[in-house]
This record gives sequence, C-alpha cells and structure tokens, in this order.
Amino acid sequence: MDKFSLHAQLASDCHLLGDLGLSQVLLLDDSRYPWVILVPRRAGVREIFELAAGDRHNLLEESCLTGEFMMHAFAGEKLNVAALGNLVPQLHLHHVIRNKDDPAWPGPVWGHSAAVPYPRQLLDERMRILRDGLSIAA
Amino acid sequence: MDKFSLHAQLASDCHLLGDLGLSQVLLLDDSRYPWVILVPRRAGVREIFELAAGDRHNLLEESCLTGEFMMHAFAGEKLNVAALGNLVPQLHLHHVIRNKDDPAWPGPVWGHSAAVPYPRQLLDERMRILRDGLSIAA
Repeated sequence: MDKFSLHAQLASDCHLLGDLGLSQVLLLDDSRYPWVILVPRRAGVREIFELAAGDRHNLLEESCLTGEFMMHAFAGEKLNVAALGNLVPQLHLHHVIRNKDDPAWPGPVWGHSAAVPYPRQLLDERMRILRDGLSIAA
Repeated sequence: MDKFSLHAQLASDCHLLGDLGLSQVLLLDDSRYPWVILVPRRAGVREIFELAAGDRHNLLEESCLTGEFMMHAFAGEKLNVAALGNLVPQLHLHHVIRNKDDPAWPGPVWGHSAAVPYPRQLLDERMRILRDGLSIAA
C-alpha cells in the first residue's frame, strides 16, 4: 500500500493544525471564512465511499466534532460541509463557517474570489482556538 | 416533536424517488447533472452534527450507497457530496455526478446557472435507474 502524503496543492493553500485519529486537519489560508479541511490519512482515496467502514465512521465523527465546534466558536449562521475534489483528487472534506455578511453569501465559497491570506495575529488566534477546541497537539 | 415534512423549495425543485431507511431521496430537476438529494426525515434539523449518532451513521451509509451507485451508473469523473443549506435550512445532502464536459466543471454547480429541466423520457429513465439501483419502491 502506498504511504499517505498530503497533496501539494492542499499543503500550499493551508496551514497544518495537526492530526485527529484519522485525518490531518488543515486551516485554509483565507481569513474571510473559518475554513477547516479534514484529509483522511489514507493513500489513493478519492471518494468517501472508497474508505473502509471504520474509516468512514471515524471521518463522520471527526467531521461532526469539527463542524459543531466551529459553529460554536465562530458563531456561524450555517455550516457548509463538502467533499468536492474536482481540482484536487485526494479526498478532503471542507468545513466552512458561513455568515450573511460573508463575501459569497448565499452562494458557494468555492471559485467565488481569491483568498485573503491571514494576517499573523489572526492566524495565530484561530489556530490556537481550533487546536484547543479539537484537542489537537501543536 | 414536530413531524417531518419536506421543505417547499426542495419539493418544487425535485422529483421524489422515494424513501430509504432514514432519508427521502430526490432527483433535482436539472438534466445536465445526475443529482440526487438525501433529506433525513427528521424535523427541525439543519446540520449533520445535530442528528443523533444512529441517524448520522445511517445518513453516511445511505450517502455512500447513493454516491457509489451513481458513479457506477452514470460513469462520473468525480462525485461531489455537500451539505450547504444557505438557502434551504432543512438538512439535505447533495450528490452530484461531475464530468469534465459539464457546464460548471471544475467549479461548483451551486449558483452556476439555471437548471435545465428533464425531458420526460430522460427523466423516466433516470428515475428507473436510480430506483432500481438504490432498491427504492416506486
């Protein structure tokens, strides 16, 4: 079996928060939306249905943990959860906190407009909040 | 507890295929994409994490069944799975078969362009394929 390694595009676009039991946890470098991506550490998987049953279940639980915490911590109007992968085939699950005053509301965030990278202080703050809330070691 | 009823916008935009154990199964009336929506029959739920643990698990299994069958039956390049709900708050999970020659590729289908309703013959064919493949009684 091939060894898992994070897709170069995800590595380039995101900050690494750390690992949950199954998934690498990434923060997309777009300060306009709290946006966390879970990437199961399984090589060669493109679709959720390709995961083994136990991995599927763990991904769902990690997704619910992540989404519920983010909605609480960032006071979102709505959570968007999506596995798309049209551009990056490695299975990855988006969790995006949406608000009525965000740039893309109520449309989708994907493809809407160029990311606005985090200033250092806000990045440090969000990474700390997420690591604490998701119990991820730095 | 309130009784489940399908949101009027979903009822208006979709054809009802029938029921799985947890979810109502809808075919979006856009002939450009094989596009199935699962709606858990639970009143007042907006987010996946709000479902009870057993319901979450069943939704995941119904989603994997649906997505895997659709990728096989419609020879997709990529499956897009998403719970968005910015416009329709009732929890619903999209399953969209994407291909490199579809109108929105590689961008998101949501908000891209107006739906193209099914002609009757293609609608009948797709509904039959989906009901057979997902073992849904008509």
